Amino acid sequence: MDAFWAYERALMDDDLEALDRLFAPGPATLRGDAAGLLVGHETISAFRGGRGGAPRRTVLAAHVQVVDDDHATIVAETELARGGRGLQTQTWARLPTGWAVTAAHVMVPAPALDTRVWREVGAPLVAGSGAGPLAGETVAVKDLYAVAGHRVGAGNPAWLAASAPEPAHAEVVAQLLTAGADVRGLAQTDEFAYSLAGQNAHWGSPPNPRAPYRLAGGSSSGSASAVSLGHASIGLGTDTGGSIRVPAAYQGLWGIRTTHDAVDRTGLLPLAPSFDTVGWLTRSAALLQAVGDVLLPPSPGGGTELVLVDELLDLATPDVGSVVATAASRWGAAREGWGLDDLGGWLGAFSTLQSWEAWRAHGDWLKPRLDTLGADVRGRFESASRVCADEADAARTVVDRARAEIRERVGDRLVVVPATSSVAPRPGDDVQAVRHATLRLTCVAGLGGLPAVAVPLETADGLPCAATLLAAPGRDRDLLAFVASRV
Amino acid sequence: MDAFWAYERALMDDDLEALDRLFAPGPATLRGDAAGLLVGHETISAFRGGRGGAPRRTVLAAHVQVVDDDHATIVAETELARGGRGLQTQTWARLPTGWAVTAAHVMVPAPALDTRVWREVGAPLVAGSGAGPLAGETVAVKDLYAVAGHRVGAGNPAWLAASAPEPAHAEVVAQLLTAGADVRGLAQTDEFAYSLAGQNAHWGSPPNPRAPYRLAGGSSSGSASAVSLGHASIGLGTDTGGSIRVPAAYQGLWGIRTTHDAVDRTGLLPLAPSFDTVGWLTRSAALLQAVGDVLLPPSPGGGTELVLVDELLDLATPDVGSVVATAASRWGAAREGWGLDDLGGWLGAFSTLQSWEAWRAHGDWLKPRLDTLGADVRGRFESASRVCADEADAARTVVDRARAEIRERVGDRLVVVPATSSVAPRPGDDVQAVRHATLRLTCVAGLGGLPAVAVPLETADGLPCAATLLAAPGRDRDLLAFVASRV
Repeated sequence: MDAFWAYERALMDDDLEALDRLFAPGPATLRGDAAGLLVGHETISAFRGGRGGAPRRTVLAAHVQVVDDDHATIVAETELARGGRGLQTQTWARLPTGWAVTAAHVMVPAPALDTRVWREVGAPLVAGSGAGPLAGETVAVKDLYAVAGHRVGAGNPAWLAASAPEPAHAEVVAQLLTAGADVRGLAQTDEFAYSLAGQNAHWGSPPNPRAPYRLAGGSSSGSASAVSLGHASIGLGTDTGGSIRVPAAYQGLWGIRTTHDAVDRTGLLPLAPSFDTVGWLTRSAALLQAVGDVLLPPSPGGGTELVLVDELLDLATPDVGSVVATAASRWGAAREGWGLDDLGGWLGAFSTLQSWEAWRAHGDWLKPRLDTLGADVRGRFESASRVCADEADAARTVVDRARAEIRERVGDRLVVVPATSSVAPRPGDDVQAVRHATLRLTCVAGLGGLPAVAVPLETADGLPCAATLLAAPGRDRDLLAFVASRV
Repeated sequence: MDAFWAYERALMDDDLEALDRLFAPGPATLRGDAAGLLVGHETISAFRGGRGGAPRRTVLAAHVQVVDDDHATIVAETELARGGRGLQTQTWARLPTGWAVTAAHVMVPAPALDTRVWREVGAPLVAGSGAGPLAGETVAVKDLYAVAGHRVGAGNPAWLAASAPEPAHAEVVAQLLTAGADVRGLAQTDEFAYSLAGQNAHWGSPPNPRAPYRLAGGSSSGSASAVSLGHASIGLGTDTGGSIRVPAAYQGLWGIRTTHDAVDRTGLLPLAPSFDTVGWLTRSAALLQAVGDVLLPPSPGGGTELVLVDELLDLATPDVGSVVATAASRWGAAREGWGLDDLGGWLGAFSTLQSWEAWRAHGDWLKPRLDTLGADVRGRFESASRVCADEADAARTVVDRARAEIRERVGDRLVVVPATSSVAPRPGDDVQAVRHATLRLTCVAGLGGLPAVAVPLETADGLPCAATLLAAPGRDRDLLAFVASRV
């Protein structure tokens, strides 16, 4: 018990050295909480170093089960200073260096809502028609879509504070409600959707339950995490440069970015209208398709021949590339080379035109408020503010050419592309570099205005990643039917 | 590991016999989850029998730490069918009868919101002025008060479905926002506030973290649980017949029922206007007082002499009565007898008039919708529908006489009364009998129109209960000052 109380004191003092000493060394030591399980002393030590202390608590009761002179389990009931009660189970062993924890399980009361994931939630927040093909489903609405009576926050508190309740639902929100789904709530987004990371300087990073302690992916980050966590069954998001496909890959979800202009964007705050699309995420291919049956126009039709493009596959890290290649081969995809020597230039033009349009959309409002943005997004908008009309015109010419070439290469086939360049990065990784590497892959559908469906896969290390299937504009339903039946 | 998988199968099959066998016998066996810790094999077995199965899940990984041939710890990562990942720690021992769990710690992902506690929550749902004496505080608003742009649910889904967004905040909500507090959300209530139990047939029973597996108390049940859970710091509620004092006592919170008509009820759905009052709950006496500084008129002044009334003390069970008596004595209360031979008649008159007014308030709407109510509340409204005008008039005469006599007896003193007749009952207890026994205590302030402040105490068994302090009408601030400084 002395060791137990020493541990409790060290925890409250955030005495990292003492905590390290009181956790058993070696790779088998365990520490778990709602964020996931940490395995190994070094992993646990690194976590402690990064979190800045545990919530204040007092121990109400400690139940000790003694195994023998050298082993015991302690289950402690705790009361948090911020309210609520917690529970923790620790198994202790006496080592040559003294008593140490070999496994700890920590549970604190959940907050009223997880503000990393949600800005508002209800039971439901908006009730659907109750009848229809989506009856019983719940939607996490990215905080860029209008929900009548609620404000749009766009991930930025200053924007939220300046906004008024919306008079009407966004068109897709209205359609989902009519189809029977309830709106569970308004999900957090990376600021103005101008990020692929799933980090928000004001609201934090939504958790990634499928890859604990890694980024959620964005910008449809809250919608994606809400689906991963079981808080909602449908995550409504947007995809301009990958904002559906990246969180789908990082969290192991099904996702679709629809054909540009195929789904009505009325009531959606724009980022770059030449590329903005409606998209959604689910935990099953069947539901992904069911939502498409509600929101999508009919398909013009086309073939089901599959191809995997060498040059795009090579843009993924080996762990991701190998499972995408294996999956493509299982689906019967042939491999072919596209050359794609212009891809760097295409991505540059994509980014330039996106920047130009983003500043047209938000520059007037943001100019005196750039300091309300997180550093990453602020940097992006500041760069965007410097794009001149001539550059935008030149970029548009390249984009038009790229679009034509991509559409011609895709033809009436289905094209397999890694959804992201890598698995979800850790918060400390070079997130900008990851963004750039992933954009080289995701910009293909963006430039082409193509639909893209993300199919969740898993690397050999057990981490989520995804393949995307691309097709000609308008063939969204064909992609959904393919993945629902063939994948 | 065979035993681990046998346990997992038994859990998924809800095979109670196998689960009982796989949990070690005896009083030291432990099982904990977010609702609290169960101690002893029999307690755990009773819990299992009452819950109707565990959520569907699959085990992703099981980490085994072997202590010796007869002892091991297993930490398992699980994935729930409804989404999200969980964690469980089990310590196992080999008994003569085979392997059995001696301690289990079960963690599943929290839902988007706990719909037993909340109907809507936000980050915040409504932002306050940000400045003022309540800056930084968060309010759980009982779902009877108008919050602009949101509907009032009154704990009844049919009422909610028929309601429209409120055009303006209730007066007290507006005052709290101006004083700097944020509205965290709309908290569940017993239907139309016509209950003291903290049970809602549609939304379930909010948890009572301070007395796990016991009722939360109502009707301000969601507001109270939100405060207990640390979801909000201020629980805004109402008290007609005890709806603040009962959850305060059951959950160990500070609470005030204000003087009748001292605080503006504009924007509050009525139950019985002759008795309805505004009230609130907190985790500290200081905050209870700080809210009073915002909402309450000045006090007319009076003495601080304390009395404890024998006949009221005797209405509490011995465990509650003894700690109330001890506390009263610590505060320097003298004991005196009031006779109170009429108390039964007074309570009858209180209930009759409350019924009459409740049916006046809601009868027209409820008459064709009685089947939308839970059984308890429906029975109460059905009785209420049968009260005739003559009975109501007669009751009003008794109430007026009781009011005068109670006020005369209280004088300018502070009167200590047990807040409830008992600690929080279990769901299976005779809740109607508990309600009646508690109303004999709580009706005194109701009849007198008096302010009452609940001071949390703890029985010898460690369960929450409370003493209330009553005073003359208008002396709310005196009571708050007394408890903030002297208790």
